[in-house]
Amino acid sequence: MTIWPSPESRSKALYDRAAKVMPGGITRIQPWQDPFPVYAAYGEGAYVVDEDGTRRLDLLNNFASLIHGHAHPAIVEAVTKRVALGTAFTLPTEAEVALAETICARVEGFEWIRFSNSGSEAVMCAIKAARALTGRSKIVKVEGCYHGAYDYAEVSLDSEPENWGNEPRSVGFSAGVPKGVTDDVIVIPFNDVEAAQRIILSERHQIAAILIDATPSYLGFTPISTAFARAMESLAEKIGALLILDEVISFRMHEGGAQTLYGIKPHLTTMAKIIGGGFPVGAVAGSREVMRVFDHRQGKPLLPWSGTFTGNPVSMVAGKVSLDLLSQSAIDRIDALGARLREGVAAVYQQRGEPGQVTGVSSMFRLHGHARPIIDHRSCYHTAEEARRVLALQRALLDEGYHLSGKGMGFIATAMNENDIDGFVAAVGRALDRLSPAAAA
Amino acid sequence: MTIWPSPESRSKALYDRAAKVMPGGITRIQPWQDPFPVYAAYGEGAYVVDEDGTRRLDLLNNFASLIHGHAHPAIVEAVTKRVALGTAFTLPTEAEVALAETICARVEGFEWIRFSNSGSEAVMCAIKAARALTGRSKIVKVEGCYHGAYDYAEVSLDSEPENWGNEPRSVGFSAGVPKGVTDDVIVIPFNDVEAAQRIILSERHQIAAILIDATPSYLGFTPISTAFARAMESLAEKIGALLILDEVISFRMHEGGAQTLYGIKPHLTTMAKIIGGGFPVGAVAGSREVMRVFDHRQGKPLLPWSGTFTGNPVSMVAGKVSLDLLSQSAIDRIDALGARLREGVAAVYQQRGEPGQVTGVSSMFRLHGHARPIIDHRSCYHTAEEARRVLALQRALLDEGYHLSGKGMGFIATAMNENDIDGFVAAVGRALDRLSPAAAA
Repeated sequence: MTIWPSPESRSKALYDRAAKVMPGGITRIQPWQDPFPVYAAYGEGAYVVDEDGTRRLDLLNNFASLIHGHAHPAIVEAVTKRVALGTAFTLPTEAEVALAETICARVEGFEWIRFSNSGSEAVMCAIKAARALTGRSKIVKVEGCYHGAYDYAEVSLDSEPENWGNEPRSVGFSAGVPKGVTDDVIVIPFNDVEAAQRIILSERHQIAAILIDATPSYLGFTPISTAFARAMESLAEKIGALLILDEVISFRMHEGGAQTLYGIKPHLTTMAKIIGGGFPVGAVAGSREVMRVFDHRQGKPLLPWSGTFTGNPVSMVAGKVSLDLLSQSAIDRIDALGARLREGVAAVYQQRGEPGQVTGVSSMFRLHGHARPIIDHRSCYHTAEEARRVLALQRALLDEGYHLSGKGMGFIATAMNENDIDGFVAAVGRALDRLSPAAAA
Repeated sequence: MTIWPSPESRSKALYDRAAKVMPGGITRIQPWQDPFPVYAAYGEGAYVVDEDGTRRLDLLNNFASLIHGHAHPAIVEAVTKRVALGTAFTLPTEAEVALAETICARVEGFEWIRFSNSGSEAVMCAIKAARALTGRSKIVKVEGCYHGAYDYAEVSLDSEPENWGNEPRSVGFSAGVPKGVTDDVIVIPFNDVEAAQRIILSERHQIAAILIDATPSYLGFTPISTAFARAMESLAEKIGALLILDEVISFRMHEGGAQTLYGIKPHLTTMAKIIGGGFPVGAVAGSREVMRVFDHRQGKPLLPWSGTFTGNPVSMVAGKVSLDLLSQSAIDRIDALGARLREGVAAVYQQRGEPGQVTGVSSMFRLHGHARPIIDHRSCYHTAEEARRVLALQRALLDEGYHLSGKGMGFIATAMNENDIDGFVAAVGRALDRLSPAAAA
């Protein structure tokens, strides 16, 4: 069998074709793997088989969107049936109503919901909704947190030490970000109540929304502190802004999302990933008082929101089946697998005295290239050498038969079992030994 | 059979459920129909059957995205096969390479392409790319043109007479649009070379991109004049900005898009709709010199662009089958049907002396509530009474068995034939007679 990255591999041949028609040969940055990506042929439950026939445990699951793994029979069946009946209509379908009912029934604060096509669209939609309701321009976000591709939401995503003042600065993520964008974003440190309070109150009259994530992936899935969550709720109330909780990833943590688990009361919640069952989706939900911003029944809404593929019945049907399968006991089971994985990997690091650690909660984890305590963006920050260490480990784990992200992130699917987890923990041990023979000796 | 909008209809029952969980009971504005939407059960080629069993000719085709109509057997077959193999991977798949090759082969200026999940995302991506390449903040757009949900692209979409100065003004579309957004958008009138030149040159050093559509739907699909296209090309060159051609809808006009048909040479092109074969999709394409903005091979790209569902194999497979079926002769055939429809409807209007007209090109058309010559946003603008006239006609045509948009827009699919078109023309006659008995007498 030809194994990636053999120059004879099908992946190499596909990459050579891809490099002729796509910048860098890819259409997403996430899947990049030096010297060229592994191309997927098909998926089966917890596993993905590449174009050269190599089977690996998929700890990425399309970056946390496939909570049941690949090609779950119930989803395949429902989608196959739907595809034959038409995949997209200008008219609404029962499927959008059913998924809306399913999601609203899971969360106490969800009275109304509005769909979109991606998490990026959902975050853009929520920010626009907050501006439309408050008539204000600025948003507050946490330094280093990822919330999709909308310029405002990207601010300070990868703020480097040379930009660090005493307090977080508003730094554009891509080149050429307009000053109007960075001026309208206020950055706060994670879980630092005192600093966040001071920064927010100093611009209280301009702030439309405070955007937070309960377990930010880029901060190693570090959970929000109760004090910080309470402070964000009361500050939003106090200054007349909306609290937006980004649950694009964290909705998997509980039947009712991270907000139910942690008792957070946001005005608006953004979702995507698992609520589409493996198809493109996004959503914003909240109380009627807030969601009325979309209501067209009194003429033009404060925020008109449409989208050609929004609410398409394939994403809606797949999402409903996926959520119906995701009972609290299913979540408890993958959370236990997550704990088992993190405990196992932590023991491996400890045995070897390697500079590294594993963080995470629920069914999410991240391997790091340093052992410093992680509480926010700056403490999570990796030097170039530390980032290389994670990449090398990720590459070694790929060779061992495990797909992780280049930043060391992974997600457990319900299709996985204890053997999968134990196999991964052992592979981390072997990979570390291979990378640092001295430590192993 | 229960017919919409009977209070006993399934559509009414679904709407009642929907109104409990969605603002206004809908998740897109487009499908709204007073007093409640018609809910689609399934589609078959040119027709869609609603939840109560009523079959209607679908002239909307999910707002121009289904160029072959509903559930084309070749698309259903390819997608069904793909779904069983997994619908979304963090890894790339051959499907994205194949669709990229297919699209790049159709247009001379497409060397590299990058996918996204919607037309809105594609336009946001192209604007961010222009800013990243030029280091400038402002974009130029045409008054009244629709380019998706990104705030900058929405500016002046529905600019009302009270906002009309001598020259177009930058007016936010939703409530609470930040001043930073409207300040960074310069609005020009369509097809007015002299005014556009004057306005653009006055801010030449701040402009990152000029965003145009060759046949803007909101301006009745009025084609761009050769003089205006040439002026936009040479102005973009002269001031060092990028010309972005939005082909989200117009790509259907020719195997190589409107740019091939009209000989326009943009730096970047945005696409969506038909290139996804009925599944969520978007794309930006252009020369390597411009598209290098996405290239990650020299470290962090000027514009990092990812997206969880970007390039998912279902959208890619469906898009490729759809485009492979869309030969130039297939396009010529639906263009001829479009001409037949527009000639037929024009004759109906002429016979009746009704205040109204039909405009459009290729396989696209729009019915208007006035007979004034349409050359731009202001001449296309409908008074409240004129807009009501179009809505009444659209409603009467729904009762006749035809789905059109509330603004009178429609799109021909390859699944349609001359009988479908002739039936529609006759129905427009009957509908007008019904609405204006005096004119019919």
